[in-house]
Amino acid sequence: MNDKKRTEIAELGEFGLIDELTKGFEPQNKRTLRGVGDDAAVIAAGRDDAIVISTDSLLEGVDFDLTYFPLKHLGYKAVTVGVSDILAMNATPEQIMISLGVSSKLPVEALKDLYEGIEFACKEMEVDLVGGDTSASMTGLVINITTIGRAKRKAISYRSGAQLNDLICITGDLGSAYMGLSLLEREKRVLRDIANPEPKFEGYEYLLQSYLKPRARKDIIEMLAEEGIVPTSMIDISDGLASEVLQICKASKCGARIYLNRIPIAKQTSTLAEEMHTDPVIAALNGGNDYELMFTVPLEMQEKVMRLGVIDVIGHITKESTGAYLVTPDGSDIKLRAQGFKEE
Amino acid sequence: MNDKKRTEIAELGEFGLIDELTKGFEPQNKRTLRGVGDDAAVIAAGRDDAIVISTDSLLEGVDFDLTYFPLKHLGYKAVTVGVSDILAMNATPEQIMISLGVSSKLPVEALKDLYEGIEFACKEMEVDLVGGDTSASMTGLVINITTIGRAKRKAISYRSGAQLNDLICITGDLGSAYMGLSLLEREKRVLRDIANPEPKFEGYEYLLQSYLKPRARKDIIEMLAEEGIVPTSMIDISDGLASEVLQICKASKCGARIYLNRIPIAKQTSTLAEEMHTDPVIAALNGGNDYELMFTVPLEMQEKVMRLGVIDVIGHITKESTGAYLVTPDGSDIKLRAQGFKEE
Repeated sequence: MNDKKRTEIAELGEFGLIDELTKGFEPQNKRTLRGVGDDAAVIAAGRDDAIVISTDSLLEGVDFDLTYFPLKHLGYKAVTVGVSDILAMNATPEQIMISLGVSSKLPVEALKDLYEGIEFACKEMEVDLVGGDTSASMTGLVINITTIGRAKRKAISYRSGAQLNDLICITGDLGSAYMGLSLLEREKRVLRDIANPEPKFEGYEYLLQSYLKPRARKDIIEMLAEEGIVPTSMIDISDGLASEVLQICKASKCGARIYLNRIPIAKQTSTLAEEMHTDPVIAALNGGNDYELMFTVPLEMQEKVMRLGVIDVIGHITKESTGAYLVTPDGSDIKLRAQGFKEE
Repeated sequence: MNDKKRTEIAELGEFGLIDELTKGFEPQNKRTLRGVGDDAAVIAAGRDDAIVISTDSLLEGVDFDLTYFPLKHLGYKAVTVGVSDILAMNATPEQIMISLGVSSKLPVEALKDLYEGIEFACKEMEVDLVGGDTSASMTGLVINITTIGRAKRKAISYRSGAQLNDLICITGDLGSAYMGLSLLEREKRVLRDIANPEPKFEGYEYLLQSYLKPRARKDIIEMLAEEGIVPTSMIDISDGLASEVLQICKASKCGARIYLNRIPIAKQTSTLAEEMHTDPVIAALNGGNDYELMFTVPLEMQEKVMRLGVIDVIGHITKESTGAYLVTPDGSDIKLRAQGFKEE
């Protein structure tokens, strides 16, 4: 007989779960500048500098499907996932460590492909691979990524710094990675029982690229530095826009208004969404996997930010009491909700 | 038809595999002081200091079996595994990040137990939990640990610093964790079909403790610092003594002679080994999971090291050309071999 209370993880959601598990863990070390609760931890290094460190896991069957995810791309994407967290702190990524759990079903050649993608991305991002560990896995491929970056302490953008009336800015377009994933999943279903499958991808190459080989936005961090812009808050868009806006609101104790018709959506994203009878805005809000950056700047920086030519202002920060809303073109307000912990 | 070459991972072994995958990754950043190939990466921080970072994964079914591994102990052990790598660099652990992949079969209460163990070990080791990430796992529990420490650059002990005639020292005793695991596995087999199993553990509590709740040897690092001893090389004993001696020999380009009858083995280890018709020396050489430290010091430090009262000198460093050997009491030499990559 087991009469102990059993709470399902889904009841709390991912963020509720992390809050529940890590409460009571207060940093004791004076060099720990920021612990749990941001894209990366921040640790003092020298008088004015800090080292930022993040960790991410990619699990086969949850985060990727090897039936259509080329290992070279997966290696590349693993680096993007790690580097993106460092960029989201307005820091420069410098080192990365990759730990693998591999099942014997993968030959050495497959792992070499994975590492070729890792190496390519490391060179592109000017990051050193400095370690890792390879162990057997009973089940699928497990990739853990630890990324290390550096910043001047006063240039770090935390999630908690957004101020009333700040502009909410994003890079790139949203939802394309999710539509790329949807396309891959559709072709996998359709071609399941065919001997020599020929998936139809013409016209949607951008979506596949967005999902399979997203490039971390190091260019943005460099541009911001050149222009002397330090975002008041920043986060990378890995779980979908809605979730990230809510994270900023929670950490900064504020509300937000996002204007639906200002969310940048690529032509291919809309076209495939129409073909698949789905809403591209849902892909942008909840799809995830974008690895774009969302940040806030004071209102008076609007012109400076727009001059960069690669940023969209999609809304602004409001008081906490007004909540976080999506404003539709007809003027109605929809409360933003996070997708939370997805059991797939 | 697939005529591509297929090399099995087992052909290369774990260390061969890592060498193969990471060749060509040369650090480019001047702040990367040490990349792949040690217990931890070393990154410059301030003029005289360095930050050391390591990453480890524990996978259900490979590294632990939840049928007999209490989650509280597993959380504790995860911290030990991470902290031990930092200690092996002669550095002080300061922060830790834990990423989990969890299947929905585990309730929130189980994860709370895990975190209770993590918290207990963090307090004991004086490290801050500074982050992590929780995601769904399709399969078993996956725990990834990233540990961060700090040291004066000139006090760091690398694997590569062992010199001719240096003494090979170890802490604690070896093989007890492996015998603890063997006992747990035996009771699991024996009691498989019994409704209310009552495993027999009397007299072997030390072995269970060694396997389920090993304590990282922070005390040793503190003692060495107090005595002003900087080991010429150091490594933690996680894969068994044989493997670690070979790692030091490879990195330091040297040979070694280990005296079998000087390897410290606990009474309970020998007793259970006898009961199970196995050799306790094999448990020490290849068992792993000890999380003790092995280090080398110059010959003239023998007395100083012995005075600490907690160190055994088990051999010495020889020329590379003479190889790495275990010397038996009757004077015969047995070539040391690593177990390598275990597919379990």
